[in-house]
Amino acid sequence: MASIVLLSVKQTAQTKAKRCLGSRLKGLAGAGDLNLRFMSHGTAGRSAAGTTKRGALAFSGAVAVTAAAVVGFLANANHFQRAEMATTIPQKAKKTKEEEGDIAQRCRGFMSVPVTDISVLEKRKDEMSTKMEMLIMETQAEFCKALEEVDGGTFKVDKWQRKEGGGGISCVMQDGKVFEKAGVNVSVVFGYLTEEAAKQMRSRGKVLKGKDGKLPFCAMGVSSVIHPKNPHIPTVHFNYRYFEIEEEDGSKQWWFGGGTDLTPVYIDRDDAFLFHNTLKEACDKHHPKYYADFKKWCDRYFYVRHRGETRGIGGIFFDDLDSPNQEEVFNFVKSCARTVVPCYLPIVRKHLNDSFTQEEKDWQQVRRGRYVEFNLVYDRGVKFGLATPGSRIESILMSLPLTARWEYMHEPGKGSREAEMLEVLRNPKEWV
Amino acid sequence: MASIVLLSVKQTAQTKAKRCLGSRLKGLAGAGDLNLRFMSHGTAGRSAAGTTKRGALAFSGAVAVTAAAVVGFLANANHFQRAEMATTIPQKAKKTKEEEGDIAQRCRGFMSVPVTDISVLEKRKDEMSTKMEMLIMETQAEFCKALEEVDGGTFKVDKWQRKEGGGGISCVMQDGKVFEKAGVNVSVVFGYLTEEAAKQMRSRGKVLKGKDGKLPFCAMGVSSVIHPKNPHIPTVHFNYRYFEIEEEDGSKQWWFGGGTDLTPVYIDRDDAFLFHNTLKEACDKHHPKYYADFKKWCDRYFYVRHRGETRGIGGIFFDDLDSPNQEEVFNFVKSCARTVVPCYLPIVRKHLNDSFTQEEKDWQQVRRGRYVEFNLVYDRGVKFGLATPGSRIESILMSLPLTARWEYMHEPGKGSREAEMLEVLRNPKEWV
Repeated sequence: MASIVLLSVKQTAQTKAKRCLGSRLKGLAGAGDLNLRFMSHGTAGRSAAGTTKRGALAFSGAVAVTAAAVVGFLANANHFQRAEMATTIPQKAKKTKEEEGDIAQRCRGFMSVPVTDISVLEKRKDEMSTKMEMLIMETQAEFCKALEEVDGGTFKVDKWQRKEGGGGISCVMQDGKVFEKAGVNVSVVFGYLTEEAAKQMRSRGKVLKGKDGKLPFCAMGVSSVIHPKNPHIPTVHFNYRYFEIEEEDGSKQWWFGGGTDLTPVYIDRDDAFLFHNTLKEACDKHHPKYYADFKKWCDRYFYVRHRGETRGIGGIFFDDLDSPNQEEVFNFVKSCARTVVPCYLPIVRKHLNDSFTQEEKDWQQVRRGRYVEFNLVYDRGVKFGLATPGSRIESILMSLPLTARWEYMHEPGKGSREAEMLEVLRNPKEWV
Repeated sequence: MASIVLLSVKQTAQTKAKRCLGSRLKGLAGAGDLNLRFMSHGTAGRSAAGTTKRGALAFSGAVAVTAAAVVGFLANANHFQRAEMATTIPQKAKKTKEEEGDIAQRCRGFMSVPVTDISVLEKRKDEMSTKMEMLIMETQAEFCKALEEVDGGTFKVDKWQRKEGGGGISCVMQDGKVFEKAGVNVSVVFGYLTEEAAKQMRSRGKVLKGKDGKLPFCAMGVSSVIHPKNPHIPTVHFNYRYFEIEEEDGSKQWWFGGGTDLTPVYIDRDDAFLFHNTLKEACDKHHPKYYADFKKWCDRYFYVRHRGETRGIGGIFFDDLDSPNQEEVFNFVKSCARTVVPCYLPIVRKHLNDSFTQEEKDWQQVRRGRYVEFNLVYDRGVKFGLATPGSRIESILMSLPLTARWEYMHEPGKGSREAEMLEVLRNPKEWV
């Protein structure tokens, strides 16, 4: 799934720190191309609809922001509403040992060298863009290594560059022992907004002034979709992302987004509890309303409308998060990112050797078909990514399962475990 | 794939014959619901983009025409341009023996009783709606029987009704000996346009006046997608459809649309020639430019933009056809509909016993993935059908293959038969 990155045009949550964008964009000024193209491929921005009322615009994986794309987005933006935002309680951030460590040292554990040069990261080690790039690289490495350990296979690592600025690292393991298809992506992209995009923003009643018509931005995220072979091991998806945009007066808009959600083939209430409770504990450290709000948002976003079903049993989903302050939101995102392994790996290990029948495998394949339906029909990142010439299609579509199935008029038998799964998808539950 | 039915708002091609719509809609007047819902599930209307410049609006399988749907359509309508329309040479129609036969007698050969009561069809046997309903029922029966004969299996026949008027007959054979999934649908639906839809039309500079704000319509079509098991037998798709809409003054807008296209997994030039030549011969009987124009339109419509590939090797595709006169366009559509068996069955029989490897099967599955991508991402009928609450989803999505596959970074070996196929999809060829 391709990243959509949200450009918040609110006049709140600005910082005066300009060094990151300024130095990243040095050398790009002569490109003469004001098109914004994200080569990112997270699942970011799924809550786009939730934010449009506040004047945000979505740009997807490898989207050249054209008037048509933006208009298309605006025209389709009312399907979801933003979950009521919790009032904020600032938390004191504790520095983890990773943050205290040497950047070059920490990079040694990554799946690849980072997108940004290590020397540049070291020079700007206190900037949010550096902290976030380190976090997404660490999350990718931590998750990939945990998956490799349980599978026995290894990830294929593709490092790619984006002509207009930045690039990404795509890690894919396909047809492993445990995982049918596992993808973990990082992207860090930067460039300028088109004047067209800025105009679209203005037409929404929000003012966003660029220097000489240019609006520098920087976007980054980590995202992943894991499809296991065994139908008793659920599919998981997560994405955590950060965005900065600079206005004419040098003030910066920034925000975070993200989420983790689970798509089982059969309901296992213990798994559902563990997954949601792990997320809830991470949320509760930061705000008592986060879990409830973001759980609701998740159920609303991952909804296959034409089936009247959610994609899975949810988790959390949030976007456009910019309060109480940058450091605290980052700490919340970090808490979430640190849960991806404890949310998922215990469930994988528990079902590793579960036996299954051909019927169970077929039901998994039918559910995979629904996953494809969500991703191709509803996922904003995918839709905008595909609509954009020059996208890295393989990174956008690596979220699709290796195999899927569509049976005409498939209907599980009454009282079956398949029917139990459908019932939950039709009526989202509280798990903790 | 769901039908999109095109509402032409041109002031040409009107007839004064009102009996069909008037009598169909009797009894609906009290429904109090001006929503237009098509329970149809053809692949009609794919050329929607080709007609918008002329002021047409598209409505899909089971679409309740809302402002949003229409706006969405208009916003996305510029991807394709209508193929330059051939100038028209009226042809004298010859009555076939079927048309001369007794309606009740002909109905005995159908897969089900028609959607419209036989007594009503007999009473209105000279009306175009009756002629077309008989043609689509005959086409369904002829094609289903030919497929059953070659497969040895039988079609499951679902007759369904549309609350707001009309209904359909869905014939599906799944997991047969030869066919993985074969669907042949007929739908005949009628009702009223919403005032919203009419307003949208007016906003496009075209006038369409309804009686007391109501615009009676009638739409029907036959459509089919056949996915065989053997990778050496191509997938085929066809759809033929007819639409009528009545204005305040009683004048009727009407038009036809349709097409047949082939999606092989491997190129077989003889198959491609046979397929295209059969279509060309049908076209040539009616107009020397039809084949060239409609072949071009087909390549343009069935284009998976994000892959830079056509879905298959094309065929013909046309829409909004309303000249030189109703009888002649019907005869052209009939000629096309009569080619579906001779276009496809010889190819099926030729490859029936071709052996194949697992690699060839895998490549078929990858191509099936692309078919899914086209149908879920680009097909207008599917998109609008899915966007509409209350659609008959199973009829819309029966065009999807039973199984499909997505491999990360799949790239056929240089000089391979898979690479040869891709080359053709990237650069559509002339086959006759």
